[in-house]
Amino acid sequence: MSQDFFERHQAVLEQAQRAAAERGYWSPHAESPSPRNYGETAAADGQAAFEALRGKPFPLDLPLADGSVGGEVSPFGFALDITYPRVRPDALIQAGTRALEKWRRAGPRAWVGVSLEILHRVNRRSFEIAHAVQHTTGQGFMMAFQAGGPHAQDRGLEAVTYAWQEMSRVPGSVIWEKPQGKNDPIRMEKRFTITPRGIALVIGCSTFPTWNGYPGLFASLATGNVVIVKPHPGAILPLAITVQVAREVLAEAGFDPDVVQLAAHEAGDDTAQDLALRPEVKIIDFTGSTANGDWLEANARQALVYTEKAGVNQVIIDSAPDLKGVARNLAFSLALYSGQMCTAPQNIYVPRDGIRTAEGQASFDDVAAALGTALEKLLGDPAKAVEVTGAVQSEATAARIEKARALGLPIVADSRELQHPQFAQARVRTPLVLRADAGNDALRQEWFGPIAFVVATDSTEHSVELARESVRQHGALTLAAYTTDDDVAARVQDAAEVAGVSLSLNLTGAVFVNQTAAFSDFHGTGANPAANAALSDAAFVANRFRVVQTRWHV
Amino acid sequence: MSQDFFERHQAVLEQAQRAAAERGYWSPHAESPSPRNYGETAAADGQAAFEALRGKPFPLDLPLADGSVGGEVSPFGFALDITYPRVRPDALIQAGTRALEKWRRAGPRAWVGVSLEILHRVNRRSFEIAHAVQHTTGQGFMMAFQAGGPHAQDRGLEAVTYAWQEMSRVPGSVIWEKPQGKNDPIRMEKRFTITPRGIALVIGCSTFPTWNGYPGLFASLATGNVVIVKPHPGAILPLAITVQVAREVLAEAGFDPDVVQLAAHEAGDDTAQDLALRPEVKIIDFTGSTANGDWLEANARQALVYTEKAGVNQVIIDSAPDLKGVARNLAFSLALYSGQMCTAPQNIYVPRDGIRTAEGQASFDDVAAALGTALEKLLGDPAKAVEVTGAVQSEATAARIEKARALGLPIVADSRELQHPQFAQARVRTPLVLRADAGNDALRQEWFGPIAFVVATDSTEHSVELARESVRQHGALTLAAYTTDDDVAARVQDAAEVAGVSLSLNLTGAVFVNQTAAFSDFHGTGANPAANAALSDAAFVANRFRVVQTRWHV
Repeated sequence: MSQDFFERHQAVLEQAQRAAAERGYWSPHAESPSPRNYGETAAADGQAAFEALRGKPFPLDLPLADGSVGGEVSPFGFALDITYPRVRPDALIQAGTRALEKWRRAGPRAWVGVSLEILHRVNRRSFEIAHAVQHTTGQGFMMAFQAGGPHAQDRGLEAVTYAWQEMSRVPGSVIWEKPQGKNDPIRMEKRFTITPRGIALVIGCSTFPTWNGYPGLFASLATGNVVIVKPHPGAILPLAITVQVAREVLAEAGFDPDVVQLAAHEAGDDTAQDLALRPEVKIIDFTGSTANGDWLEANARQALVYTEKAGVNQVIIDSAPDLKGVARNLAFSLALYSGQMCTAPQNIYVPRDGIRTAEGQASFDDVAAALGTALEKLLGDPAKAVEVTGAVQSEATAARIEKARALGLPIVADSRELQHPQFAQARVRTPLVLRADAGNDALRQEWFGPIAFVVATDSTEHSVELARESVRQHGALTLAAYTTDDDVAARVQDAAEVAGVSLSLNLTGAVFVNQTAAFSDFHGTGANPAANAALSDAAFVANRFRVVQTRWHV
Repeated sequence: MSQDFFERHQAVLEQAQRAAAERGYWSPHAESPSPRNYGETAAADGQAAFEALRGKPFPLDLPLADGSVGGEVSPFGFALDITYPRVRPDALIQAGTRALEKWRRAGPRAWVGVSLEILHRVNRRSFEIAHAVQHTTGQGFMMAFQAGGPHAQDRGLEAVTYAWQEMSRVPGSVIWEKPQGKNDPIRMEKRFTITPRGIALVIGCSTFPTWNGYPGLFASLATGNVVIVKPHPGAILPLAITVQVAREVLAEAGFDPDVVQLAAHEAGDDTAQDLALRPEVKIIDFTGSTANGDWLEANARQALVYTEKAGVNQVIIDSAPDLKGVARNLAFSLALYSGQMCTAPQNIYVPRDGIRTAEGQASFDDVAAALGTALEKLLGDPAKAVEVTGAVQSEATAARIEKARALGLPIVADSRELQHPQFAQARVRTPLVLRADAGNDALRQEWFGPIAFVVATDSTEHSVELARESVRQHGALTLAAYTTDDDVAARVQDAAEVAGVSLSLNLTGAVFVNQTAAFSDFHGTGANPAANAALSDAAFVANRFRVVQTRWHV
């Protein structure tokens, strides 16, 4: 049965392997929610499916559950009133250990086949998942659909692709024949078995539960590990649907559904820490705060720990033909999902003497004003603005805007509360952009949310140095630069390579620094404090399994 | 210049990549010291070169040296009287950081070309290195030549091969073109740059300084890192020669020789710990005790730490057509280099009711006696015996034999001191083999050196269970089993896969459980406490470099 799944998706897997090698554009998951891609009734069906889940226990059969938890509230202003079965860590470990017994012996084709079938079925529930993502994370619907659906599925498939690539490089068995001069050669048969690490734990975040959760989930599952998915208590539903699909597929393939379990839990309890320290847990994928990520790295010593933590993303503006184009692009990057993307820019360095443009020198204030104007234009109409900003996921992020305002720095663009035309209670905020001098301590931390700084530097050289050292010390997932000067571009690129951060040059069109495309852009480098791994590369998957060999004479 | 090196060795690299994928027999480094392979004068020249090094400062130009260290004593009973320049950790880090500046920008072809040229020149010095290995580790000459020379070079080449494979999978630059329906596609150029981690530290051991040192050294160097080689104070010379060769090649290629530095130091000082905790040190490869390896894993948190530590290797005897063949093979494995190989067997499980053989049931005592007899025959003639046993590297290992004897267990074969015909003061010991019951606590630790136990178990099932649990708890690099029963073989293989240890079945000929062949056998699995990595696989190299991308519209 599971072999069938592999065969069913083998053509896609082969395309995916080529795509990962070539790193051009490729995706098998349509990013447009058009009926042409998903069917005439998909949008309505997905919404209905989401509505049908509200106010009820989520239909997930976890036999060892001893209670229920829930309490998600949409950032758009209503409670979901969904409860989930709660399984205690002891029971999760017990069930996972039992499920591992058969799963570990199934081998790469079965692991990969099941993984690909799960992704395929998840794709068909993209609309339902989009609503689930929207009403847990606060993303606008279009982003919730794309980033929570097809783009997340792309990242999941990418992880499976790398896993298959690494596993399939090891031959199943070989004849080893060593010449012995005039004597007969020594002949041995050697069998190489791919074995999983054991139980993998995926710790989800509240802003991109599927996009950040799928790479670790599918990398571990496709390499034969069993997986416990521990969602953020504020964003359980998207991962609960995913786990539901996974368990369906596993059961159909003849495996114990407990190969994939959900660990829904109360906010503020110690479920994550408890699970993370279990000796049976051999792999942890984490997205979240630096404090929690550092704690895992320091304490979960029995496990391989892959973390994505906080960072301070930066923009260097040196020169540009078209300042307005720069401002438009950056304004969108700042406003998109209210700056709650881990890739959103925060510190924008501009020489205090201004920059060169095609229309002559633009002063520092001109640059700041251009950004303010671009934000006003982008967000002037609340009905359109909310589609870009979405809602602010947590009250803590909204409160951070007040904290930033209290720094007392000059305001380039003030944050406003917007009235959502559909959801009266939605927590919507536009970006707060402040002016700061390069030495300001506030620049040396992440201000997660719609908060950014236009930073006056001594020169572009100074900007580059600040960016490089900030990446090294505080981490970053993105760096952007605007320059018309090839030498400056080369120096920025060198700084990016030394510090270990992805660089986007002169983005003024339809691509934004926040965005990465699976199979082409690496998300994170694993070379600075913001993340210890990249999505996805060989290093992300190759240690999740091991090879055990048996040899004998023939 | 460095490009020349790559081209010079490209054909070998391509063969090596095929070999690593196919995992059949392959080596470009002749393991026989025959004049046909190395030239008529190679043996004499190598010996003369070694003799010329004795009693002098070793010719290694380390500009920041502020003193000298030395004090190696051959286990064959004489002082080498060689001193080495001593460079303090501060100076090593300073020089390494400076050397990294140019090296990091040279790119994979240069890194790999230089690495391959170093290996090529090291190969030509195999005889000199053989004497250096013999008279630091105590290995017999033939093993010192093979394991210290060509086999170590194979493992180094294997690491370079995997490094090249992983790096060359990332395209240098691509055009990314995303369709936009009726509109023009979005086109971007993306450049992917391989960047090293920084400074790598290789911590050598006293028994296999080159064999265990080369994989980490070459994996790090070939991925653009600079390397500090810290030899064990008792086995500096083989790595000093290697570093000397590396610096010659680097200088010829136009790089700072400090890309590879030697950190010779006094026994008992804190050089290893000091270097291991430096923030600039991003990679550590370690071979040695569990205590030191665990300390590194717990404390060197800024670095990727690859460790090979202690383990308890095991043999399961269930049944055999020819008990004598089993005993002969095991006796050699126990005696070879006096059990000082990390792969040497220690606990040999035999059911207390005996085993089936072609000549009928053999009692437990028969099996033990056969092993004793085989050892007597193998080691009866001291002149031949010392070629197998070599000498005992340290006094601590020799003393461990007394400690084992003091356990008071029945003696299967007693350890003897042998007189070496050439080196009167050589520290030569034959194996001590004791009889123990399965529950004996002594079995739950490594007895490094010529010490083994024939262990009475309740049944083969019991033996398998003991082996599996011991691997899980105490680690192991090897497991061997003897059985004529396919079901038993399958159960042992399953136990090996669950516990994560390589298995050799029914070795009675010219292959010994101690031995692994590069490009075919993985050394270690990385799946049990004896080692957290395998030599070599993708996981061993893929995280030593990162990819930093730059993208822009075209």
